[in-house]
Amino acid sequence: MSSLFLRTLRDDPADAEVPSHKLLVRAGYVRRVAPGVYSWLPLGLRVLRRVEQIVREEMDAIGGQEILLPALLPKEAYEATGRWTDYGPNMFRLTDRKGVQMGLGPTHEEFFAQLVKSEYSSYKDLPVTLYQIQTKYRDEERPRAGILRGREFVMKDSYSFDLDDAGAKASYAAHREAYQRIFGRLGVRYVIVAATSGAMGGSASEEFLAESEVGEDTFVRCPDSGYAANVEAVVTPAPPARPVDGLPEAVVHDTENTPTIATLVDWANEALDRTVTAADTLKNVMVKVTAPGGTPEIVGIGVPGDREVDMKRLEASFEPGTVDLLEESDFAANPFLVKGYIGPRGLQANGVRYLVDPRVVDGTAWITGADEPGKHVVDLVAGRDFTPDGTVEAAEVRDGDASPDGMGTLVSARGIEIGHIFALGQKYTDAFEVDVLGENGAPVRLIQGSYGIGVSRMVAVVAEQTHDEKGLCWPAAIAPFDVHVVIANTKDTTLVDGAQQVAAALEAAGRSVLLDDRKASPGVKFKDAELIGVPLIVVVGRGWANGLVEVRRRASGEVTEVGVDDLVAGLDA
Amino acid sequence: MSSLFLRTLRDDPADAEVPSHKLLVRAGYVRRVAPGVYSWLPLGLRVLRRVEQIVREEMDAIGGQEILLPALLPKEAYEATGRWTDYGPNMFRLTDRKGVQMGLGPTHEEFFAQLVKSEYSSYKDLPVTLYQIQTKYRDEERPRAGILRGREFVMKDSYSFDLDDAGAKASYAAHREAYQRIFGRLGVRYVIVAATSGAMGGSASEEFLAESEVGEDTFVRCPDSGYAANVEAVVTPAPPARPVDGLPEAVVHDTENTPTIATLVDWANEALDRTVTAADTLKNVMVKVTAPGGTPEIVGIGVPGDREVDMKRLEASFEPGTVDLLEESDFAANPFLVKGYIGPRGLQANGVRYLVDPRVVDGTAWITGADEPGKHVVDLVAGRDFTPDGTVEAAEVRDGDASPDGMGTLVSARGIEIGHIFALGQKYTDAFEVDVLGENGAPVRLIQGSYGIGVSRMVAVVAEQTHDEKGLCWPAAIAPFDVHVVIANTKDTTLVDGAQQVAAALEAAGRSVLLDDRKASPGVKFKDAELIGVPLIVVVGRGWANGLVEVRRRASGEVTEVGVDDLVAGLDA
Repeated sequence: MSSLFLRTLRDDPADAEVPSHKLLVRAGYVRRVAPGVYSWLPLGLRVLRRVEQIVREEMDAIGGQEILLPALLPKEAYEATGRWTDYGPNMFRLTDRKGVQMGLGPTHEEFFAQLVKSEYSSYKDLPVTLYQIQTKYRDEERPRAGILRGREFVMKDSYSFDLDDAGAKASYAAHREAYQRIFGRLGVRYVIVAATSGAMGGSASEEFLAESEVGEDTFVRCPDSGYAANVEAVVTPAPPARPVDGLPEAVVHDTENTPTIATLVDWANEALDRTVTAADTLKNVMVKVTAPGGTPEIVGIGVPGDREVDMKRLEASFEPGTVDLLEESDFAANPFLVKGYIGPRGLQANGVRYLVDPRVVDGTAWITGADEPGKHVVDLVAGRDFTPDGTVEAAEVRDGDASPDGMGTLVSARGIEIGHIFALGQKYTDAFEVDVLGENGAPVRLIQGSYGIGVSRMVAVVAEQTHDEKGLCWPAAIAPFDVHVVIANTKDTTLVDGAQQVAAALEAAGRSVLLDDRKASPGVKFKDAELIGVPLIVVVGRGWANGLVEVRRRASGEVTEVGVDDLVAGLDA
Repeated sequence: MSSLFLRTLRDDPADAEVPSHKLLVRAGYVRRVAPGVYSWLPLGLRVLRRVEQIVREEMDAIGGQEILLPALLPKEAYEATGRWTDYGPNMFRLTDRKGVQMGLGPTHEEFFAQLVKSEYSSYKDLPVTLYQIQTKYRDEERPRAGILRGREFVMKDSYSFDLDDAGAKASYAAHREAYQRIFGRLGVRYVIVAATSGAMGGSASEEFLAESEVGEDTFVRCPDSGYAANVEAVVTPAPPARPVDGLPEAVVHDTENTPTIATLVDWANEALDRTVTAADTLKNVMVKVTAPGGTPEIVGIGVPGDREVDMKRLEASFEPGTVDLLEESDFAANPFLVKGYIGPRGLQANGVRYLVDPRVVDGTAWITGADEPGKHVVDLVAGRDFTPDGTVEAAEVRDGDASPDGMGTLVSARGIEIGHIFALGQKYTDAFEVDVLGENGAPVRLIQGSYGIGVSRMVAVVAEQTHDEKGLCWPAAIAPFDVHVVIANTKDTTLVDGAQQVAAALEAAGRSVLLDDRKASPGVKFKDAELIGVPLIVVVGRGWANGLVEVRRRASGEVTEVGVDDLVAGLDA
């Protein structure tokens, strides 16, 4: 450590909010170069490489073949699948000296599909799984938490190509199991949740989420059934439709000064001869939806008044399109939109697409806007008085909501996306006509899967899940060193010599050793050892004269004295 | 091989001219994605990783510490040293979603200097050597020969920081020796030549050039003295100045139809009373020199008429400025420039900077242009009739030229730059004020060195130097596999079983094995084995029944029969 390129910091970096970010900077693992762009110092790089190696071993174990594609990629392939447009500002783009537009790859579905097309031609060549561990680029709007959400990051991405659905399913299952083994070896607490495929396309996908309060993803679980899903992927169970016959007529009421759901509910409980809750009202939220490369379309979103619209769920419903709330100028340009009093009839009369929460089934009666200032309509019945253009997953999901599998209720938690597996179907193989000659002589269009793990993110995730108030606390599988040997007092040459003997003995036994030979006080050294987080700390100090060293286990804090001769065996205990 | 992602090609790729490029594509090592941008397939990636590992081991051996910086870099640091401008179109640049300009790093001097400044503060921390093996970007005007000159490539770059000149020299020497060990282990034939520092700046540099006819660098050597230099770095020995007293007067002659040196020499031998050669004439070549970010300046370059101007040498003299020949419009705009008849007096009378070859010393008399159509001046004496503004290394270097060390003559050869080491001095540490507190309490400005090896290029260089007419021919140190086992006939299950036993035995002995278990003809398999170039080929065929296998040494072509039980020992022989 006296020559290691490492300086620990006493203070948290000013821009850090999340524990892993603070500690990885303070302990000298990473340094910021630009927003979302980091350097890996010696300790950090060692951890990163160990994570990579675990991922590599498990990918090899399922027959994955490692290759390496470039990050600098031509526009044409992304254009063929529409993703040059779909990625929008999330892709870094540049123009080379000849005026050719290129992108920095956020993910490589197109290029693996093209590669398989160029190399393989017969059904005998399939199936194949290819992967790379490679630097990726994504121009995140909000890079965050150090290496947790960076703009330059290391990812393992793999791609499977199969002849038929059964093969594609087997490839997907093999990846799912490999991911479970990888995250198991890394000691990560995680859940697998149903997910939306988003801009990636394809038929099905699941996310691996590390449980963490600092996570940006919210997922829900049904403890009774084991169901789990990213909130964006939760499908709201629709109640059965009801008969409209015999339901009261829709009546418009004067409801002055009821621009909010709460004031409307107050009015209703006073004016109507029944008990009304927010769930009886239908709230209409106006948004602009913009398909990639398209012009904005105004859409009305109807949700029960007791729920907010969850913009992330709504955006997921329209991906790769984007969703924005209406601005004042939009209301001004469309005078039939009476703020606070918008109703389904006004929207439909003016040709505005109107999508509703799946709970708004035929035969449900609602209190909602009557499209005039200060007026609402009561008992407006879906399927009789208005007919939505479809349903949309937009309403917030809440703890206690019914599980989509009908087997209990949901509870929510936060997580960090650490892996995502996609059954892509033929989106990309169609775009590039990736066919091989089938057994019967006819061409077979291949079925692709895509599977990602955030390798550099994983370093932060493990730090996040394992740290304590003293510092980092690595699992043995990816610690930067196996043992941290501290010389308690460098003025005592017998201790210096002794520690060097101990370090040499440990290295001879195959352990990697970080030796703190700095001329600092024992207090400083112990604090740094705890901050750095190597799992085993061996102190060569007072006991040395009696042939003893102290072994501190970083995670448990357990301290034992061990005879020097028993040290190597003692560490395994 | 029946499942390896590898398809060999019978034909050379249409865009390949250089043997290594043809063979690396045909043998399935790399695939082109865009000009100068390549994918590494399984075999190529294995070779690349082995080269990386050798470089890593030797960098570690001199105390280098591996870290990893990003490729996506903020503009500001490059602006502080002027290189944002100096790099010109060679740097890939982009603007992020917030409008911030960034570059893709071609080399990282600025960022390592900043990093050392931010982490280190005391003389006790020094010296330090940091390195990375990282993907670099350079928007080459002419990407060439596959991975030999790519636009995205892997480089090892290291940087040393020292307190004083003696330390800096020691760091430089340590790198020089490490490079010799690296290139020795890789089995590369190379020379170390004096080089120009170019845009990198600094006081001294040497290049490691792999000897190769397809190289873009020309270097010269003096066989007698051992002197070697890149042609751009050759310093022309200047003869001693001569007295001007008593030399004939300069006289202007009518020399109609003598716009070229050859026609001028013919005229002179007829008209003058002496023997004249092209070396007695002074040729004036007009160029525009543009400093980075500046406006073009017209400069006259005077060289003896028997030599061409070597544009690469001339450009090196003006780096980081660029040099272009004058166009017709420039001549039109400057009527005093009389094409074919330009002379020193006209240039100097019109305020044009005039630089001459070092051979043009005071007292030398020249036949040169008289600045009027059809007129030349004879006996124009340097130091009497004109005074150049300085000297410039612009004239071509030729075999037989005197060695700058005065100890013989030069011969030239071609090479590929595989390494470059720079004593940078304080160019970068000045720009960022990289100081530490010295032993005496005063700040010490650090001295930096910069050292690069083209890691991905090395794969092509070794292929280039070792291939033969049959294909690639790897040295054992970086071959993709140690042994290539061929099943001569896959219909014979005893051979299939036998080959699998042989492969397993070799792997148990620590050898990596490529097993050709494809259902192809023996001829196809042998051809592919020769193309792929694994150093040892073991054929399990007819001899198997008698407990024998055939061992073919790829490089020598030597074939021996070996008993199965002696196989592992036999390979070492």
